[in-house]
Amino acid sequence: MLSGSASPLSTFQLSVLFFLQLAFILMVCRAVGWMARRLGQPQVVSEMIAGVLMGPSVFGLLWPEGQKTLFPEASKPILFAASQVGLSLYMFLVGVEFRRDLFANKIRSATSVSLAGMIVPFLLGGLIGSWLLKHPGMFGERVSQLEATLYLGASMCITAFPMLARIIYERGLSGTSLGTLALAAGAIDDAAAWCVLAVVLASFGDSWTIAALAIGGGALYALVVLTAGRSFLSKLGDKVEASGDLTSQSFGLILMLVMLGSWITDFIGIYAVFGAFVLGVAMPRGKIAEILRGRMESMTVVFLLPLFFTFSGLNTRLDTVDSWGLWGIALVVLAAACIGKGGACYAAARIHGEDQRTSLAVGTLMNARGLMELIILNIGLQKGIIQPTLFSIMVIMAVVTTLMASPMFEWVYGRHARAKGILGPPAT
Amino acid sequence: MLSGSASPLSTFQLSVLFFLQLAFILMVCRAVGWMARRLGQPQVVSEMIAGVLMGPSVFGLLWPEGQKTLFPEASKPILFAASQVGLSLYMFLVGVEFRRDLFANKIRSATSVSLAGMIVPFLLGGLIGSWLLKHPGMFGERVSQLEATLYLGASMCITAFPMLARIIYERGLSGTSLGTLALAAGAIDDAAAWCVLAVVLASFGDSWTIAALAIGGGALYALVVLTAGRSFLSKLGDKVEASGDLTSQSFGLILMLVMLGSWITDFIGIYAVFGAFVLGVAMPRGKIAEILRGRMESMTVVFLLPLFFTFSGLNTRLDTVDSWGLWGIALVVLAAACIGKGGACYAAARIHGEDQRTSLAVGTLMNARGLMELIILNIGLQKGIIQPTLFSIMVIMAVVTTLMASPMFEWVYGRHARAKGILGPPAT
Repeated sequence: MLSGSASPLSTFQLSVLFFLQLAFILMVCRAVGWMARRLGQPQVVSEMIAGVLMGPSVFGLLWPEGQKTLFPEASKPILFAASQVGLSLYMFLVGVEFRRDLFANKIRSATSVSLAGMIVPFLLGGLIGSWLLKHPGMFGERVSQLEATLYLGASMCITAFPMLARIIYERGLSGTSLGTLALAAGAIDDAAAWCVLAVVLASFGDSWTIAALAIGGGALYALVVLTAGRSFLSKLGDKVEASGDLTSQSFGLILMLVMLGSWITDFIGIYAVFGAFVLGVAMPRGKIAEILRGRMESMTVVFLLPLFFTFSGLNTRLDTVDSWGLWGIALVVLAAACIGKGGACYAAARIHGEDQRTSLAVGTLMNARGLMELIILNIGLQKGIIQPTLFSIMVIMAVVTTLMASPMFEWVYGRHARAKGILGPPAT
Repeated sequence: MLSGSASPLSTFQLSVLFFLQLAFILMVCRAVGWMARRLGQPQVVSEMIAGVLMGPSVFGLLWPEGQKTLFPEASKPILFAASQVGLSLYMFLVGVEFRRDLFANKIRSATSVSLAGMIVPFLLGGLIGSWLLKHPGMFGERVSQLEATLYLGASMCITAFPMLARIIYERGLSGTSLGTLALAAGAIDDAAAWCVLAVVLASFGDSWTIAALAIGGGALYALVVLTAGRSFLSKLGDKVEASGDLTSQSFGLILMLVMLGSWITDFIGIYAVFGAFVLGVAMPRGKIAEILRGRMESMTVVFLLPLFFTFSGLNTRLDTVDSWGLWGIALVVLAAACIGKGGACYAAARIHGEDQRTSLAVGTLMNARGLMELIILNIGLQKGIIQPTLFSIMVIMAVVTTLMASPMFEWVYGRHARAKGILGPPAT
């Protein structure tokens, strides 16, 4: 079944291999997750690292043949398609958990923090982008100055909103000044990042017709889903609230809508994650949201999402970062990312009258890139905007900023807040 | 994205298409399911039919280009791999629900019913198999007399155990004489069918080494999982019972084991469904089983399992059953299936002293082929044992016997039992 011969694998052999890949991915993610938890890191960090470990950078370096046998080229369409479905279901759940009500409070300072945390890294990223354009092997050959600037700018200002939200909920900070501010800023940031990404991706279309389809179609999709879609879904929500149960029929309908929304947004060129997220935001809250989480969360997060990290890791080639010069570039990118995002968010929070510790904590949390960064990087790589070397440098930046977040948060805020009794134990 | 050109689809295009396929599949399954429910048929019947509708027999006949664009050859590995994972997760859950305790009661009459329901259809199927071997386009070219007899015998004696179990639980018959007898007989039948299937498949191996690997390996796998595996898992069950929760870490471990078990049994040649089912049987009952069902059932049954019915339907070509002769063969197969299975089970129950209605009900329920039949048929087709025409004839038999079960049950048992107050309302 694991034939190493040159003959192409049959449909059946690929499906047999898929079981082994899934078993291997689950094993590595859980093993790394177990170690990460001992070090106080959240699961997302460990899965980012697990992905890199399974790719050519580590597994492929230690045992090239084993890596090629377990993850042959022919199996990539299966892994990719399954990982995209997992990602779409995950983004739908993130949308379901999105707190629309938080916009009402703290809207001004949150907007400032969010804007500062978008504009400064965007400018720094743009500068670095136009600088790196001259380096060979960084951007695709036909990428223009403007495109390089836009793409690197956008990919610098990403925030790991789902991770930020999870840290805040898990530690019982939802009601505090820090929690409200960070969640609202993260939410705005997240929504804005998707818009920027849509514009940037649209600008890479072969023509402005394609760009207009992406931007106009995306706006229309969001409008329809958040008005007509939302009112239709709220009727479903009322039914669930009354009966206390979501029928298989209705559950199937919701899944169908998630897949359809993912397809539409993929098709018009602004990516499935956006379509699924918007649909999640449009879902009614209350009983139905609770049931959806109960039925979907474990399978999505534990079973399907690791596939995305794996696919991303398979594309990460740390061996292409093979000179002091390139490591220097990685350091510059990392520094710009931290100063631009963390620094700017801290400064904006301070200006809006938050105390030193709270401002530092906001900067720390907003600085984590997490899964969102990997999404934009994979899109860039797949579209030919960036090449494997720059992709790998950006993955390093994403992993390091995500890795930093938990210990930094603990250091600048956690231990003091815990001493005062306003913070739960670290996430486990 | 839905390019109809001859150029091969890229990994990205295939993943975009997969979203559309999933949306379409969910839509068709739910629409047919909605209609089937109005007619008092369970969801499994509607999904069998939905699969056939989406295949070349209906969708492909009405709009050949649309069918080819939505389900191109290149997308089959993705659909197949995902459907196999869904099937494996489903069989694991069926294993988790398997009532080991039922073997204790009613063991004698259940064994008789089960044996009668295996031996008679096996003999009839074998006869038909050796008769059809002379017809062109039925069996693969290199299939011997013995192999044709064995395969058709085995595929005649399948019972839709999960469906049978669902009907009995849903109608509150678990405690009755009928419920206990049918469940126990179905369970024995199910276990025996997998063993027969393993032997039959093994006999198609290129050599007896392969057959020995399948039979010996399968037996060893079952032994290890049901002893060492079961004792390891029961510790996990105790932990869950004490804490009341299954951690993501443990849940990931269980999923990893399901994938690994599926891979092992696929690899040795007795199919993933067997490995996953045995692992499910080995799981402890109680809290952990309840949590697993809560987390996995909806996503597996509503989201992933329809992929299997679709893949099966894509292979069903009713247009190959294109002459009175072939429809005659289909009728003979159907009659042999009903007389062999339903008739023999009824007779065995009568001999063991059950009353007329109960015996008829047992025969009716045991006669439904359901999903299990599609599994053995797809394996046969994929291994080249049977050809599309015989595959389609057998699918007709599977659909018709499954379709018959609910109304027949209602007619011979349901209405009378309901009048006496010992039966709940029909499944909805």
